[in-house]
Amino acid sequence: MTNRTLIEQLNWRYATKKMDPTKSLPQEKLDAILEAIRMAPTSSGTQPFEVIVVTNKDKLQLIQKAASDQTPITEGSHLLVFAAWDNYTDERIDEVVDLMTQERGELPLINTYYDNLKANYLPRDAEVNYAHAARQAYIALGVALVAAAEQEVDSTPMEGFSPPHVDEILSLTERGLRSVVLLPLGYRDASADWLLPMKKVRKEQNTMITHVD
Amino acid sequence: MTNRTLIEQLNWRYATKKMDPTKSLPQEKLDAILEAIRMAPTSSGTQPFEVIVVTNKDKLQLIQKAASDQTPITEGSHLLVFAAWDNYTDERIDEVVDLMTQERGELPLINTYYDNLKANYLPRDAEVNYAHAARQAYIALGVALVAAAEQEVDSTPMEGFSPPHVDEILSLTERGLRSVVLLPLGYRDASADWLLPMKKVRKEQNTMITHVD
Repeated sequence: MTNRTLIEQLNWRYATKKMDPTKSLPQEKLDAILEAIRMAPTSSGTQPFEVIVVTNKDKLQLIQKAASDQTPITEGSHLLVFAAWDNYTDERIDEVVDLMTQERGELPLINTYYDNLKANYLPRDAEVNYAHAARQAYIALGVALVAAAEQEVDSTPMEGFSPPHVDEILSLTERGLRSVVLLPLGYRDASADWLLPMKKVRKEQNTMITHVD
Repeated sequence: MTNRTLIEQLNWRYATKKMDPTKSLPQEKLDAILEAIRMAPTSSGTQPFEVIVVTNKDKLQLIQKAASDQTPITEGSHLLVFAAWDNYTDERIDEVVDLMTQERGELPLINTYYDNLKANYLPRDAEVNYAHAARQAYIALGVALVAAAEQEVDSTPMEGFSPPHVDEILSLTERGLRSVVLLPLGYRDASADWLLPMKKVRKEQNTMITHVD
């Protein structure tokens, strides 16, 4: 645990291109990252995604092949696969309602709220609902990137992969899930990563932030 | 600044339903949150969204009307509107390339990379590109939620609003932007917020995290 500020953590992290395959995350660092993902907020508390933690070498090699051979997938010690619900369903929302009721007690408010949510979500196209669920996974991705930096663990967010292939490799389709984004976790190989010495590039605040006073 | 861990920060925060309109964020806390948003990672470093910081009372009232009258919009002292690019364009990518070149020097790698990106993105439907840009804004939303908690500032992520109305109120369409998510910032009214005393509800890790060893 460190006393660095969030800004310092965000400046420390970078999309690691070369990881050291001899180093592995200790369990407590992995746990801290997963716990941050679990606590990340989502729309109406639905948490409409799951995270698959892959350490199986054969699966990792297959996933790397489905991801333009990006090596951090096998050089890192753990791969997180964020997989969003393929749709909102009665059953999935009912599980959320059951958990809310269990934790907060029987409140008419809860049922009314989620009945309205169902009336809104369930008639929509699966693709619209999946897109919404995927956005929630991205909130957790943002939180996970911070969590990894806090733990001084390197990570590489990756969108460049074939979701259908990864879904097949991990048997996600039959679980009603679709892979959204990959996040290898590990430790940078500081002597071999071409990106590490390069300056971090971000737009100036005045080109992306405007004020309406 | 505090020494709380990320997990402690995530447990402290909640989607504040009632803010105290007499309290206002000091400039340095707003700046820290905006700086975290600016430093949030995005796909290929494109940062394909902007943030509008609204403090204008008339605009805030109009936005609140377009958001089912959710009161934190006017009770908070600042409203962040995350607005994603409506499409990827040659000009927008060229600006990214120019910035990269300015910061890292003239590298053939940079041009090749973004030429490939253009060949991939530009032929796609605007809606596909907007959806991709919106996801990047959600990474920054996740980071912003952490940044606010670090600063002990309350925030309320909101998807329940009419994007076309907010786009019109803030004249976003003519800037090629579409509003994605709202984030009022302020301070909780601890005595009047019905949600504050309720237990925070999250799924157990074993219902959303699986391992493939």
